[in-house]
Amino acid sequence: MSALKFEILAKCSRTNARAGMISTIHGSFDTPAFMPVGTRGSIRGLTPEQIKSTRSQIILANAYHLMLRPGPELVAELGGLHKFMGWDGPILTDSGGYQAFSMADINSVDDEGVTFRSIVDGSTVHLGPERAIEVQNLLGPDIIMAFDDCPPAVDIDGQDDESGNIKTRPVVNPADYAKRLQVAHDRTIKWLARCKDAHKRVEDQSLFGIIQGGTDFSLREKAVEAVCNIDLPGYAVGGVAVGEGPELIRKIVEHTAPLMPWAKPRYLMGVGYEKDIIAAVQAGVDMFDCVLPTRNGRNALAFCKSERLHLRNSQYKADPTVIEKGCSCLCCCGGFSRAYLRHLFASKEMLGPILVSIHNIHHFQSLLLDIRKAIREDSWPSLERDWPVLEATEARPVSTDTLT
Amino acid sequence: MSALKFEILAKCSRTNARAGMISTIHGSFDTPAFMPVGTRGSIRGLTPEQIKSTRSQIILANAYHLMLRPGPELVAELGGLHKFMGWDGPILTDSGGYQAFSMADINSVDDEGVTFRSIVDGSTVHLGPERAIEVQNLLGPDIIMAFDDCPPAVDIDGQDDESGNIKTRPVVNPADYAKRLQVAHDRTIKWLARCKDAHKRVEDQSLFGIIQGGTDFSLREKAVEAVCNIDLPGYAVGGVAVGEGPELIRKIVEHTAPLMPWAKPRYLMGVGYEKDIIAAVQAGVDMFDCVLPTRNGRNALAFCKSERLHLRNSQYKADPTVIEKGCSCLCCCGGFSRAYLRHLFASKEMLGPILVSIHNIHHFQSLLLDIRKAIREDSWPSLERDWPVLEATEARPVSTDTLT
Repeated sequence: MSALKFEILAKCSRTNARAGMISTIHGSFDTPAFMPVGTRGSIRGLTPEQIKSTRSQIILANAYHLMLRPGPELVAELGGLHKFMGWDGPILTDSGGYQAFSMADINSVDDEGVTFRSIVDGSTVHLGPERAIEVQNLLGPDIIMAFDDCPPAVDIDGQDDESGNIKTRPVVNPADYAKRLQVAHDRTIKWLARCKDAHKRVEDQSLFGIIQGGTDFSLREKAVEAVCNIDLPGYAVGGVAVGEGPELIRKIVEHTAPLMPWAKPRYLMGVGYEKDIIAAVQAGVDMFDCVLPTRNGRNALAFCKSERLHLRNSQYKADPTVIEKGCSCLCCCGGFSRAYLRHLFASKEMLGPILVSIHNIHHFQSLLLDIRKAIREDSWPSLERDWPVLEATEARPVSTDTLT
Repeated sequence: MSALKFEILAKCSRTNARAGMISTIHGSFDTPAFMPVGTRGSIRGLTPEQIKSTRSQIILANAYHLMLRPGPELVAELGGLHKFMGWDGPILTDSGGYQAFSMADINSVDDEGVTFRSIVDGSTVHLGPERAIEVQNLLGPDIIMAFDDCPPAVDIDGQDDESGNIKTRPVVNPADYAKRLQVAHDRTIKWLARCKDAHKRVEDQSLFGIIQGGTDFSLREKAVEAVCNIDLPGYAVGGVAVGEGPELIRKIVEHTAPLMPWAKPRYLMGVGYEKDIIAAVQAGVDMFDCVLPTRNGRNALAFCKSERLHLRNSQYKADPTVIEKGCSCLCCCGGFSRAYLRHLFASKEMLGPILVSIHNIHHFQSLLLDIRKAIREDSWPSLERDWPVLEATEARPVSTDTLT
């Protein structure tokens, strides 16, 4: 018996896109779905009511951060993450693998997991498959992620990492990198079986496996086979959006997603901009999370259907219009002008980041609503007409990290 | 004709307290009234909807800060302060006198006003009675304050200033201080006449005069006579809560308020804790503003009817209860536990300051609601029974400054 029910309600006639619904004991959410990120059990500055106003149906939190503070035992004692943060809808947590491998001050990595220094109190912390699942069992979200070996992205060609998200990005030669990916692959499969064994709350929490493989297509294929051979309620594509650029992400996803089981939810971790999401939906992906709307919102960048607004720019100094005409978010409906928002950012007033975060999450949820409509009605051309930004060229997407 | 209508609807049989209503073109508010402080055109982190949820009916903004950024001409161009910040209820602005005299890097003070360096861009700014009124006419609040000579509080006895709010607090001898207060008094009266002459929006904005006089009772008496001799819609007691301690504030207010015209609103600027407000209400004061609920809220201090909670304390680490049982604020009704709030502060999450600010403003509005009820029903003993905190001994109240 699974704690999760996935129904595919419509599929596209020309692409692999599908629209459906995922039900959990904390309610259901429509797919394709976008999950805003509440790293430490809070989507920065937003009340659950404000999150709901964005039409978000499921949110993501980070087991890594909540493990370090306030600790999963405490969250469990207080009734679990839903009650703790006042969000009664579905929640997904990632396992902490990505953060432990890419951001922590690592002491050692071996077949038992990773040992690192806590960013909170400097203590030594061990995270392996069993503890990662125990942490998520204690936190109590509806969907939990397997603990995988997720080696930090490296810079094969010696170019700078523009995303700024990778703590260390050593230049390595391709052969060494391939070897490290192979180790990661083997460990990930072994750890997945251990995660499944360690999972104690199958009746109300659904464990998703993660498909790694970096940019190596044949390794991705092997990972799909090995990971999906272990029967789980859903599967994710991990290890993208770690600095490899949107074109390569697109190719990886287009290659990998169709190989995954049709009847199970497919989750692309940490992606992305609007057009990255569209491409992945067309490859058959059902779930997304990204810090873009909130992190950029806090930095005064507002997403619109046809443009990006850098609200600190002087051109908005006396602009009486809202971020986007016709937008139904609390910020635009509240009548807050670009000039007022610019003033809030200039004055370092918290209300600026809050209002633009609300608008930006609402923007992504509008896109997902329109995507689901396009799948149901087979109307992709109208989606592209309504969303001129889908044609725009962007900087590379950012990955999920602490800076949410 | 006045833009403001003040009706006294009930008065206490044993004290000078009265309950009433003040009407402006942006709606009315019940008195005694408490105004939360939105220094830069935003109550830190709170949307207008959240401010309304605290039952606040009128808010305060600072002409000084809005003059320096974004500038009153811009706010006027954008339709005025109400539209700018999305608050459709009554607004009061102070003139900027207090900030200019106590916080600015002053170049000169003379009969024409004060010249200082802008904290925003370092430019030289002049503020005198005419410009202070012009700024407030441009901003467009319902109640505007006269520009007065408000010398910084000094330390007559050489003791340290515990409030930390006074930029410079030189030790002076009593004779010098008395001389400075006399100059301030004479200037304030002359400037008040100039303010009244400069005021161009009498049909929709109400100018209040300010009674100064420091801790000198006879100077306070002279100020009442001279200021209230100029016919205005309301009068304020200024120059308290600048470091003189709650007992002395209480004596000044008890001495001064009853001398002010009975039929006009009386506003005590920058006060205070609950029992300071009660004492002032009993002396006949109708309006209050203070940064206490928001500034303390941002620092994890929550106000309750019977205690103060320092939410960073480890005693709340696993406390599953809300700040105050039975409280109807968004924070307590949302079920956010003390443990969650502590976690938010520990994790530097904006949501902590926001939720506790909401609770604290709601707390002050609950007090004012109960005060109005006590006046109408002549039931002070029940008020004291319901608010044990009124018996508590507090540190001295803080004054209105930039740190809201």
